[in-house]
Amino acid sequence: MDNRYDIAVVGSGPAGLSAAINGKIRNKRIIVFGSKELSNKVIKAPKVDNYLGFYGITGAEMKKQFKKHIDAMGIKITYERINAIYAMGDYYGLAVNEKMYEARTVILATGIEYTKPLRGEEEFLGKGVGYCATCDAPLYKGKIVTIIGYNKEAEEETNYVSELAEKVYYVPMYRGTYDLKRGNIEVVSDRPIEIQGKDRVTKVVLKEREIITDGVFVLKDSVAPNQLVPGLLVENDHIKVDLNMQTNLSGCFAAGDCTGKPYQYMRAAGQGQVAALNAVSYLDSLK
Amino acid sequence: MDNRYDIAVVGSGPAGLSAAINGKIRNKRIIVFGSKELSNKVIKAPKVDNYLGFYGITGAEMKKQFKKHIDAMGIKITYERINAIYAMGDYYGLAVNEKMYEARTVILATGIEYTKPLRGEEEFLGKGVGYCATCDAPLYKGKIVTIIGYNKEAEEETNYVSELAEKVYYVPMYRGTYDLKRGNIEVVSDRPIEIQGKDRVTKVVLKEREIITDGVFVLKDSVAPNQLVPGLLVENDHIKVDLNMQTNLSGCFAAGDCTGKPYQYMRAAGQGQVAALNAVSYLDSLK
Repeated sequence: MDNRYDIAVVGSGPAGLSAAINGKIRNKRIIVFGSKELSNKVIKAPKVDNYLGFYGITGAEMKKQFKKHIDAMGIKITYERINAIYAMGDYYGLAVNEKMYEARTVILATGIEYTKPLRGEEEFLGKGVGYCATCDAPLYKGKIVTIIGYNKEAEEETNYVSELAEKVYYVPMYRGTYDLKRGNIEVVSDRPIEIQGKDRVTKVVLKEREIITDGVFVLKDSVAPNQLVPGLLVENDHIKVDLNMQTNLSGCFAAGDCTGKPYQYMRAAGQGQVAALNAVSYLDSLK
Repeated sequence: MDNRYDIAVVGSGPAGLSAAINGKIRNKRIIVFGSKELSNKVIKAPKVDNYLGFYGITGAEMKKQFKKHIDAMGIKITYERINAIYAMGDYYGLAVNEKMYEARTVILATGIEYTKPLRGEEEFLGKGVGYCATCDAPLYKGKIVTIIGYNKEAEEETNYVSELAEKVYYVPMYRGTYDLKRGNIEVVSDRPIEIQGKDRVTKVVLKEREIITDGVFVLKDSVAPNQLVPGLLVENDHIKVDLNMQTNLSGCFAAGDCTGKPYQYMRAAGQGQVAALNAVSYLDSLK
C-alpha cells in the first residue's frame, strides 16, 4: 500500500488549516502537523476585528470556530513536530525524530518566530547549540545538556534527552506545570542571558546563576524555514513565494506569516487556500 | 475642507469588505462603492465549506455575517457604480456619471465578469456599443438606443437615457420587475444573439426579432479593469499585482477575483486585507 500522502501541511494556524480544508475538499490525502492549541498566536489574541465575518471575536473563540470547522470535515491534526524536510525528487521526506513521513507536496505554514536569539546562540549554532534535542541527543550521551524550552512540547524532548544525558537543566520560558520524568532533570527558573564558550559551548549565563554545560538546545515554536527545508529560498527572513504560493522547490508551497508581512490571520487563511489549490493542480499535473 | 478620501474601495464582495474593515481599523477615511447585495456571487452560493471558521454556510448566511461585521464597524456602502477611474498625480478621480469622487488610493475589488460578450459586441465597441449608458447618453439625443441590462442597477441608467433618447429598448437579462419610468421605454423580453452594423451599429438581432438601433449599451456587473482604469496593466484578463497587491499604478491596489484565479472567497478576503494594509503604508509614506 501507498503510505505517501498527497499533501503534508506543516502548521495548524489559520494558513495551515485553510490549506487543509481546501486539500480535503479536493479529495486529496492530507496530513496536518500541528499542535492541540492549533496556534499559540491565535489563542492568545485578546480581540480580532479584521477577520471578515467575525467582528470582535477573541482568539480563543476563533480557535473554537476553526476547530469546529476541521472537526466537521473529519480533519485530524497530527501532534508531531517536523524536524526536517528533504526534497527526494518526486516526493518529500518529513522527519520527526526517527520517524519519516512521505508526501508528494508540502505546504509550509509554520508561522514566524518572534523570539529574539540569545546572545551567543547564533555564534555557537552547530557548536553545541541546536534546535532539535531529539535529533542530536545521541551526541550528548553521558554529558550535561541545557534545554531552553519555549513551550510544553519541549518537555517531551527533555524527557527523551534525559535518558541519554547524565544531567539535564531545563529552563522553561513559560509558566505552568512541567511534565518532566527523570531524577536527572533540574528545572531552572531563571532567565538566560548569554551562551558562552570558546570553540564550543561551555556555559549558559543566566540572570541569577551560570550553568556549566556541554550543549544547549533552544526549543522555540518554530525554526527558520531554510533550516527546516534545506535548499529553500528565503528572502529577508521569509520564505520566497510567488502569487501561487509556490516556493523555489517544485511541489513545495508556503502560506501565512512565514511568507512575509503583514502578519494577519485573514491573509494567512487566504494564502493557505491558494497554496492548497495550487498543490492540487500540481498533483493533477503529475498524472 | 478636504473632500478627498484616503482609500476608495471599488467593490463590496469579500475582497472589498476585507479591505474596508482593515482600512477603517487603521483610521483611514474610506469610501466603499458597491451594491446592497454586497456580492451577487456570494448571495447565490448554495453552500460554502472552505471559508475557514464557517463550515457548510450558505452564501446568504455568509452575506449576513459580512453585513453584521461592517455594520458593527459603522462602514456604509455607497450604492454607486464607478464608470471610470483616472490617475491624477497625487490622487485618483472616480467618476460616477457626472459626479467625481477623489481618493489618495484606490483598491480595485471588482470581481470578475463571467458574462461572455455577445457576437459583435467587441467588434463595435466604441462604434455604437458602450458600457456606460449615462456617460454616453448625450450622444444619443433624439436617437434610438438599446440597453441590454444584466442587473437592476441598469434600470436607473435606462431611465436616465430615456430622458434624452427618442426611444429606448430595454432587454433585461434577469427576472423580476422593472422600475422603468417613461413611456418611450419598451421592455423586450427576448435573448440577444448578435450586434450588427457596418462602420457603426445598426441593429441588434435577438432570438425572436430584430431591433433597428443607433446604439447598444451592455450593462454588466463589471467592466474590464483596464477599461475602468486607463493605464492599468492587465495580464490574461486579470489585473497584474505583486505580492503586496500593488498594481502598476502607484497608489492603486487590487484584490480578489479581478487579480486572478483561484476565484475563492477566502483568497479574496486575504488579498483585500493585504491591499488595505499596503495602501495604509503608502499613505503613511506620503506624509
